[in-house]
This record gives sequence, C-alpha cells and structure tokens, in this order.
Amino acid sequence: MSKEQKNEQQFVKEITSMEENFPQWYTDIVLKAEMADYSPVRGCMVIRPYGFAVWSHIQEAADKRFKATGHKNAYFPMLIPEHLLEKEADHFEGFAPEVLWVTHGGDEELPERLFVRPTSETIINTMFAKWITTYRDLPLLVNQWCNVIRWEKTTRPFLRTAEFLWQEGHTCHETYDEAQKETLQMLEIYRQVAEDELAMPVLLGRKSPKERFAGADETYTMEAMMHDGKALQAGTSHNLGQNFSKMFDIEFQNRDGGISNVWTTSWGISTRLIGGIIMTHGDNRGLKMPPRVAPTQVIVIPVAQHKEEVLDKAYDIKEQLSSKFRADIDARDHYSPGWKFNEWEMKGVPLRLEIGPKDIEKEQVVLVRRDTHDKIFVPMAELEDTVARLLDEIHDNLFEMAKKRREENMHRVTDYEEFKKLMSEKNAFVKAMWCGDQDCEDQIKADTAATIRCLPFEHEQEKLSETCLCCGKPAKTMVYVAKAY
Amino acid sequence: MSKEQKNEQQFVKEITSMEENFPQWYTDIVLKAEMADYSPVRGCMVIRPYGFAVWSHIQEAADKRFKATGHKNAYFPMLIPEHLLEKEADHFEGFAPEVLWVTHGGDEELPERLFVRPTSETIINTMFAKWITTYRDLPLLVNQWCNVIRWEKTTRPFLRTAEFLWQEGHTCHETYDEAQKETLQMLEIYRQVAEDELAMPVLLGRKSPKERFAGADETYTMEAMMHDGKALQAGTSHNLGQNFSKMFDIEFQNRDGGISNVWTTSWGISTRLIGGIIMTHGDNRGLKMPPRVAPTQVIVIPVAQHKEEVLDKAYDIKEQLSSKFRADIDARDHYSPGWKFNEWEMKGVPLRLEIGPKDIEKEQVVLVRRDTHDKIFVPMAELEDTVARLLDEIHDNLFEMAKKRREENMHRVTDYEEFKKLMSEKNAFVKAMWCGDQDCEDQIKADTAATIRCLPFEHEQEKLSETCLCCGKPAKTMVYVAKAY
Repeated sequence: MSKEQKNEQQFVKEITSMEENFPQWYTDIVLKAEMADYSPVRGCMVIRPYGFAVWSHIQEAADKRFKATGHKNAYFPMLIPEHLLEKEADHFEGFAPEVLWVTHGGDEELPERLFVRPTSETIINTMFAKWITTYRDLPLLVNQWCNVIRWEKTTRPFLRTAEFLWQEGHTCHETYDEAQKETLQMLEIYRQVAEDELAMPVLLGRKSPKERFAGADETYTMEAMMHDGKALQAGTSHNLGQNFSKMFDIEFQNRDGGISNVWTTSWGISTRLIGGIIMTHGDNRGLKMPPRVAPTQVIVIPVAQHKEEVLDKAYDIKEQLSSKFRADIDARDHYSPGWKFNEWEMKGVPLRLEIGPKDIEKEQVVLVRRDTHDKIFVPMAELEDTVARLLDEIHDNLFEMAKKRREENMHRVTDYEEFKKLMSEKNAFVKAMWCGDQDCEDQIKADTAATIRCLPFEHEQEKLSETCLCCGKPAKTMVYVAKAY
Repeated sequence: MSKEQKNEQQFVKEITSMEENFPQWYTDIVLKAEMADYSPVRGCMVIRPYGFAVWSHIQEAADKRFKATGHKNAYFPMLIPEHLLEKEADHFEGFAPEVLWVTHGGDEELPERLFVRPTSETIINTMFAKWITTYRDLPLLVNQWCNVIRWEKTTRPFLRTAEFLWQEGHTCHETYDEAQKETLQMLEIYRQVAEDELAMPVLLGRKSPKERFAGADETYTMEAMMHDGKALQAGTSHNLGQNFSKMFDIEFQNRDGGISNVWTTSWGISTRLIGGIIMTHGDNRGLKMPPRVAPTQVIVIPVAQHKEEVLDKAYDIKEQLSSKFRADIDARDHYSPGWKFNEWEMKGVPLRLEIGPKDIEKEQVVLVRRDTHDKIFVPMAELEDTVARLLDEIHDNLFEMAKKRREENMHRVTDYEEFKKLMSEKNAFVKAMWCGDQDCEDQIKADTAATIRCLPFEHEQEKLSETCLCCGKPAKTMVYVAKAY
C-alpha cells in the first residue's frame, strides 16, 4: 500500500460512513473539518474560523440582495423586559418554554425580569410604533443580523443549537397586498441564496396552519432534502397581517387622512444553512463546499516542495489566483502532499491545484475537482479562465446531483398503508393529497414521524387523487410530506 | 425671513447648542439624526439604520486590516456557565458587579447559572486549551464580532450602554516578544481606523496599573479628545502575558520538545467609536460624518424638481455617482430644498449636490461641503474626480481641525495648584509628570475628577520637570491627564 493510500485510509477511518450511521457521519465531519466544536455551554457550539467563513459568505450573498430590495440593517436590544409580553400573549406562548430569563445583575435581583430574544418581534414592533406616523414613513424595511437563543432540549451543531446566528427581517406596509408581495419576494431571495449560492435545491410553499409561526397569517418556507432523505426547513417568510400592528398599536395616517394599522412581515435564515450544506453535498470523504460560499475555492499544494523553484512558483500562483478567487496555499513541510490532498478533500475545497517540478517544466498545473475527482492539466496561460469555468461547473454539478437525488427519492403516494410502509423503510419525500384537517396531519405524524413540510404553490400542484391520503375525505391540496430535522 | 432661513431656524432650535449644554447637544443629535433611539430596555439603545451603517463601515475598515494581518473570525457562545469562573477569580472580579445572570429556562430553574459575556476571555481560552497542541498551532489569531453586556448604572447612547456591539481579538503566541508585537500591532491598526477612517486623532500609550484590564500584564490605549475637552478611551489592546494561559492550562509542545504555556493578547473596539465621531466632528448644525465611514457620501438634491428634466437628470447623476461613491437622492416632493439642505446637513453628509434647471443648462452641478460650507460649481465632465478629491479633502480637514483643537487645549502643567485651577475652569488635556504611585493617581482624581489617560510611548515623552505633579517626589514618566467619558 502506498503512503498516499495509507493516508487516505486514515482519514476515511476517522469519518464514519454515512450509510452506516448518518448522524455520526455528520458529527465527524463538523468536528474533523473544524467547522464547529462543542463548547462547555449546554447546547451551544463554537463556530470555528472555517465554519464562520461560510457564514460570512452566506451573509454577503443574502445581505446584498436585501439591500438591493431596499432593506437597511439596524440593531435592537437582545434583552426584553417581561412587561412587553402583556401585549402579545399568543405570540409569546409559542416560545415561552424555550425562553431564558435574566433575573440578577451582579448580586442584585433585577426589578423586572428580562428574557433573551428567541426572535425580535416584541422589541422591534415596539420601536416601529414610535417611528411610524404617516404613509410617507412606509414601507419601513429593516433587517437585523444577530444571535438569538432558544433553549431547546435536543441540540446538534448548526441544525439546532440553543444559541444561533441569523438574520431577521421586519417590515411594515400600507396594504395587505404590499405585505404579501414582500413576504413572497423574500422567499424568492432565500431560494436564490439556497440554489444560486449554496447549490441546494429547495421546494417552496406554504406551511399548514399548525406549522405556522406563532402570530403569522401565513408562513412560507423553503425545504431541502438532505443526503439521508430527511427534510431541512431552510428559511421561512411570514405574512403577519395586522396581528402585530394591532398588538403594538402601529398606526399611521393613511392617504385618505384616516388612521390605519400597518401590515407587517418577518423572515429569517440562520446558521442552520451550514448544516444544510454539509448534509446536501458531503460524502464519505468529507465536505463538498459549494464554490460560491467556500472559504477556500482553490488550494495550491506544492509537490516535491523541497526542490528548487517549486515553492516560489506555488506562492506566485497563489498570489495570482488571489486577485480573483479565494485561494490558499498549503506549504507545511511536515505533511506529505498525500496527507494534504486528503485533508483539503475532507474540508471540501472545490479545486485542488498541484504544482511540481515536471509541471513547472511543462508550464502547466494540475487541477483536481472535489466533486468528480477529475484531474485536469491546465497550461499556465489558461489558468484563471479555467478556474473560473470549473468553479461554475462544480456549482452546477453539485446542484444537479442534489436535485437528481431529490427527484429519485420523491414518491407519489395515494394509499395510506403504502405510505406507512414506505416511511417505515426509508426517509423519503412524498407527494400526497390532504383534506386540510389537522387531525390527519397529527395522525400522519403519529404513525410515521413524518410531517407536512409545505403546500406547494399553484404551479407545482398535482392532482394525485380526489381524496385525502389519510382519511379518504375529499382532498383540498397536494402537500409534501417527509421526516424532518 | 426667507422660507429657507425659517427652516434652518427650526432645525437649529431643535438642537441644543453645544456651548450651552454639551450632553443635551449630544442627545439631540443622536435622536434627531436618527443614529439611535432609546428603547424600553434599561440602558440599551436601538441602533437605527443610519447609525448602523456607520458601524458597518467601521467594521469593514477594521476587519480588512485584521484579515490582512492573518486573523480569522469565529463565534463563541454568549452564555458562560458559572463553574468556568473558578479558574479565573481575579479576572472576573473586575466584571462581577456588572454581570447579568440567567437563572431560568422557561419555567424551570437551570441546574447551573449562566452569565452573559461582558468579554469572552473565559470561554475563548477554554476552547484554545482544547485546540492547541504544538508550536505548529501557533500563532492562533482569532477575532469575534458580537454583542456584550455590562450592566452599568449610568448609560448614554453609544458611549456607555448596557449592551453594545464590539469586536474582541484573542491570540496565542509562542513567546512573550511575539505577544507584545501583536499587542502593539493591533494598537497601530486601531490608530489607523481612528485617524485614517474616522478622522479622529488619537493619543497612544500604556494605561497605569490601576487602569489596566483585569488580568492583563499591560493595557495599551488610544485616547481621543472630544469637542468639550473630555477624553474618550476609543480602543484598547492587552498583553495578557501567561496569566490566562496558566488559568486555563493552554499548553503546547515547544520547539525543544518541552511543554510551555502560550502567551496571549486581547483587544477591542466598539460602537463607542460612533459616539466619538459625533463628539469629535459635530457642530451646532448637527453631525459631520467623516467621508470614509459616512452612510451617504453625496446627497443629490434636485432644485425646482417639478420642472422638466430636473428629476431625470438628478436620478442620472445619482446613478452615475453610485458606481464609485455612496450616493443617495432626496426626491421627496413634500419638502422644500431648503428643508432638505438642513436635514442632510444635520445628518452630516459630507457633500451636498444641488441640481436645478439653470445648472442643467450650464452642464454643471453645485457641490456644497458640510465641513466648510464652501459652494463649488463643477462642470458635469469633472464631477467624479471632483467628488473623489473633495471627499479626501474633507477627511483631511476634519482630522486637522480636530487635531488643532486638541493641540490648543493641551496644557503642560507642573504646579498642582495651577492644575486644580485649570481643571476646575475647563475640560483640558494636561501633560504632567508622575511618580508612578497610585496614591497620587487617586488624589488627582479626588481633587479634579480627572484621571491619568495614558503613559505615552518613549518618543512622545517630554521631561516637564523632575518631580511628580501631585506629591513632588521624583517623577518617573510623563502622563496625559484629563476628565474622561
């Protein structure tokens, strides 16, 4: 066995195979690729630099779209005094069990308890009521990047953590139509971030009333299929109607001179998306980073780096690439090239660039794709164009592979026994008809642990049968059903 | 009185004059310019979009310098379990009275209390101990942008708030020398951010032992003079020696094969800098935004906008400028140009661009500088170059004006009675000699409310006399003394 093969074996040994134990595979990757680490704080992770760089690129991709559609960033207090809850008992009830309470400052008991934001409707709408006077103040389009806390019992790095990072958009509008347009516009922006940046195909639709955000008229969602066939709710956008503006008295002088309540929306994506990247694209050799958010897009690895010229040339190439790409070099002299190949493969870097004495002679480099393992010899003169083209191709290929996997695991089911059997055998996405009754929704969950992920939009609707999958009564809509994270 | 004059009066009336009542002037500006707003949470402000945009530009300016010097961003939990404090009683003691405690999750009491980070040495060093094995892991250069909480009794928007946004860098090194070099490098980066980006001149130096960060071997600081003659501590960089690495057992295998403790540093700047911008540059007409962090660098205001061509042309110019500058347009039809001039002047936009029918005829625009009120007629063909040049000139002028003010209010004092008299009459910066004894430091504060801001570096030292300002014993160093925020 060659040294390289041994190195590879060692790495592979350290990552549990995903077929054997998917949750363990996930944890192995998160820790080994240094995306995150467990902390001594229950349910809270540390996002390490490699993982945080992904988050930064997601932020950039989303933020530029938020700004292009007129939203501005702001920052609101993290701690919220208890008395503000009086106005919104129903909304808060949904979060109450997961809310953390601050009771003491230093040695002294606080005169009033404060809770740590699980989401910021309470404080933001309180401020909106202060800021809005007339229709000229509308629309008010605000976004906040921040940390929130939901003290959940069961946690997992990125997917569900007690503290997580997210953005929450909050907007006020003159009319219902404008609020609805905004809600759908932000869902579309989330789709672009997921599909065009993370190469993660998503299904869009409405949540069932049971799964709605507490206080929303409608919740829209994007749902992605993970490598194990489970669904990940990857982002949500809520039309809040006038529910919050009535709770918080957000009124404005309308164009007719009368007083109206504004119409509000809110929408969010979070560090959960990083878990989605890992579970959408990863394989048994490690991560596959979608190129547009990859912390390193090209890793330069010198071969026989002790030989004359090699290191100098490798650094030159890294410098050259750095003007257009996120390029890095691994010039550590205590690891072999084989070791480095495996390490960067595990970290999912889309392109590996090898440069050795023979390549220098031939004025070429070797590029190796993380997604296909294709080895491509590239003349130096064509390097930049080739890298740009390959990064786009890798993005497209990751997207297509994920989409193909989703289509292959998408089932149309009209018989409940067949449905239960399928769900007991595997994690699958199912298209099914639903009567709209929550009893059926609950029954499906009780029988299979699967849930209605969403009601797709009109153009995605199919009429699989006339009757509800569960109860046999007349069906109202097609839904996607799956087990979910 | 013309309508314009009336508008101006109205605005000026709403801002208290700084000579009359500086704190009220500050509050008026913060609120009227929509930089921040009071929130219903004690001591916590809302950073409104206009204020947050300034913070974003400060972040960019600092972050690119952090990255250029090898630092990577990460994220650590905000809540820290009480038991971690056992290791660092002395450090924590400095923060204990201001720390908030989380005691309940939902209705249940937590098994262990958690405190909200006032700074993150505790959690970050705990993780560092896990991550570092050998000298090959060093230096470890990490930065975090986050919120922190210090539950202070007296608060003021930006300057001192219970919750604030900041960055905290934390680094580990093989040797004392490297840690010291890092500490000073980051101080220099902070100086660049303050002077080259915010046009805010700063004095650099060491803190006295009494004013050191709890747990630091040395604390270095930059101190700026505000418009009222008081000092603002605008950023600090700490050489933590091996204090934290011993508390948290951060050990590594050194180059000789032995085991050593790492040497650590930490350093931070915060949203406090925004208060510094306001109080360094503002005047009785409002803010003056330093161009490099100004949310809007050029505001286009159409004059006689109902006339043909004017609005179209104004939008064209705004579009043209937007490719190189942060340009905006105020095309609201329910405010007069005069009203808009005053509003944007109050918001401190460095350049106002006026365009009306006559200007269109002459193929020119009018630029008005916020800092000098100079009115400049610019041919359309020269617009971009002129704007670029003027923004640089405004930056330089703001910096020079602030520096001049500081020099004019800098006093060399060797007689203690003279010192007390000066300090009772005004807020001044004083160069004085000090014996190094904390008793004198305390006496100065008790007598005048002024404090030793820093001990300047060697090349800034002057020998004003042989003896301490306060006690008359032999002096060891020159210090800067001032009242401070």
